[in-house]
Amino acid sequence: MSNVENTNQKETIRVVKIGGNVVDNPEALEAFLVDFQKLEGKKVLVHGGGVMASKMAIDLGIKTTMIQGRRVTDAETLKLVAMVYAGWINKHIVALLQKDGCNAIGLSGVDANIIPAARRSPIPIDFGFVGDPTPSKVNAEFISDLLDKDIVPVFCAITHDEKGSLLNTNADTIAYTLSVALSSKYKTILYYCFEKEGVLRNVDDPKSIILSMTKSEYESHLKQNIIAGGMIPKLHNSFNAIDEGVSEVLVMHANNLLTQKGTRLINENGTIK
Amino acid sequence: MSNVENTNQKETIRVVKIGGNVVDNPEALEAFLVDFQKLEGKKVLVHGGGVMASKMAIDLGIKTTMIQGRRVTDAETLKLVAMVYAGWINKHIVALLQKDGCNAIGLSGVDANIIPAARRSPIPIDFGFVGDPTPSKVNAEFISDLLDKDIVPVFCAITHDEKGSLLNTNADTIAYTLSVALSSKYKTILYYCFEKEGVLRNVDDPKSIILSMTKSEYESHLKQNIIAGGMIPKLHNSFNAIDEGVSEVLVMHANNLLTQKGTRLINENGTIK
Repeated sequence: MSNVENTNQKETIRVVKIGGNVVDNPEALEAFLVDFQKLEGKKVLVHGGGVMASKMAIDLGIKTTMIQGRRVTDAETLKLVAMVYAGWINKHIVALLQKDGCNAIGLSGVDANIIPAARRSPIPIDFGFVGDPTPSKVNAEFISDLLDKDIVPVFCAITHDEKGSLLNTNADTIAYTLSVALSSKYKTILYYCFEKEGVLRNVDDPKSIILSMTKSEYESHLKQNIIAGGMIPKLHNSFNAIDEGVSEVLVMHANNLLTQKGTRLINENGTIK
Repeated sequence: MSNVENTNQKETIRVVKIGGNVVDNPEALEAFLVDFQKLEGKKVLVHGGGVMASKMAIDLGIKTTMIQGRRVTDAETLKLVAMVYAGWINKHIVALLQKDGCNAIGLSGVDANIIPAARRSPIPIDFGFVGDPTPSKVNAEFISDLLDKDIVPVFCAITHDEKGSLLNTNADTIAYTLSVALSSKYKTILYYCFEKEGVLRNVDDPKSIILSMTKSEYESHLKQNIIAGGMIPKLHNSFNAIDEGVSEVLVMHANNLLTQKGTRLINENGTIK
């Protein structure tokens, strides 16, 4: 009981991740950002951009190789994703938020060494310049200082190896990493916003949404092949986040950020930490 | 006398601008950054990137139009320069500084609304999405807070109009704007580093360097056509900076940052404010 009380005293922070399909649609992105800036309290935005990166790769004649849904990042592709994620998308989002009076700041993991990462081993699969961050190494104090000044950090999915090289990191992983890192100070809610209603029993039927799920329910769904392949890493990240201190995770359509309609992922007791 | 004493009590800050030709040369850039991180005291880096932007424009089939040495920025070119300046170059420089233990943060003018700008009038020349910032509107307090935490801000030459659009801004102008804005709090020295020894009487002879210059000497050189065309906007910015509170401006080769060899631009009395 004392644990719950302690946690309840913490201020709430919302870590919101918006996916590449929404980012690539100007109207959807603008509408989402209008909702995002209406979210009350402390908040952090994390954005993807893979759809735009793949398009730009075609324009530049760079071959896109995906393995298990992850981009293989050679030196040329690293430059490309740094340009697209940290350059255009990140600063464009910040400009749109600033227009609406939301004092945003665009950041990557290399800035102020906020998210250092380890370059992934080339064995068994060589993903190239891809980084895996560790929540305990995040410079959460720097983020917290920004939040205390009513500045809203907007993160792209670029980290670095502390040896001079940028690294490409999955945006869902950035959102997981930041939310775990912030959960020691804040009651943290993680939102995965994308172009589906939530976790669906039938991927083609938006009404088949699963409204809430614990980790053991997730594992049971997995065994029954109820969860679609693309959703598995997102849910894996989500339940890890909950295990490591995040209060709850919402998987939802980008249009539903304010109504909070979606799939609620919670801890085993069904209570929110 | 009391003025001089007051100014002497101010802490020194160095605003260092590094040009696109150096940025585009990996060895020259790395060597420059090693020197930059050795500079003692508070410092800010501003980088160009025009050379790389022009190359990338060719790769993407985007036409580069320059008028009076300035890039005409249509919507496609704006996206390109945001990608190249704020994306690859900015984050790559920050990664290299972090490697050497310099806690850098990459920023553009849109971040935390540090450098708002007015979109330039299309009359007499329509430069497109080009922004002119005003030193008094710079969020110098935010920069100062970073510096107090031993964080080194690294600026690319992207600003915004506060209406949702990014703007392309000349990097020399960003350095001028930041140095004037910081001069109310700090004794500010502005360094323009590029691939020449300084201001030369004969552009082909590195030994023809002019070691120091006041504004009236500059105007007299101008009348005698001693100053080369490309140098005029840089010197114009420099003397404006000195008029508006900057202590001195050094125009120098990127290799000479630590030796401080170059052309020293000073106020009319020959004293440093």
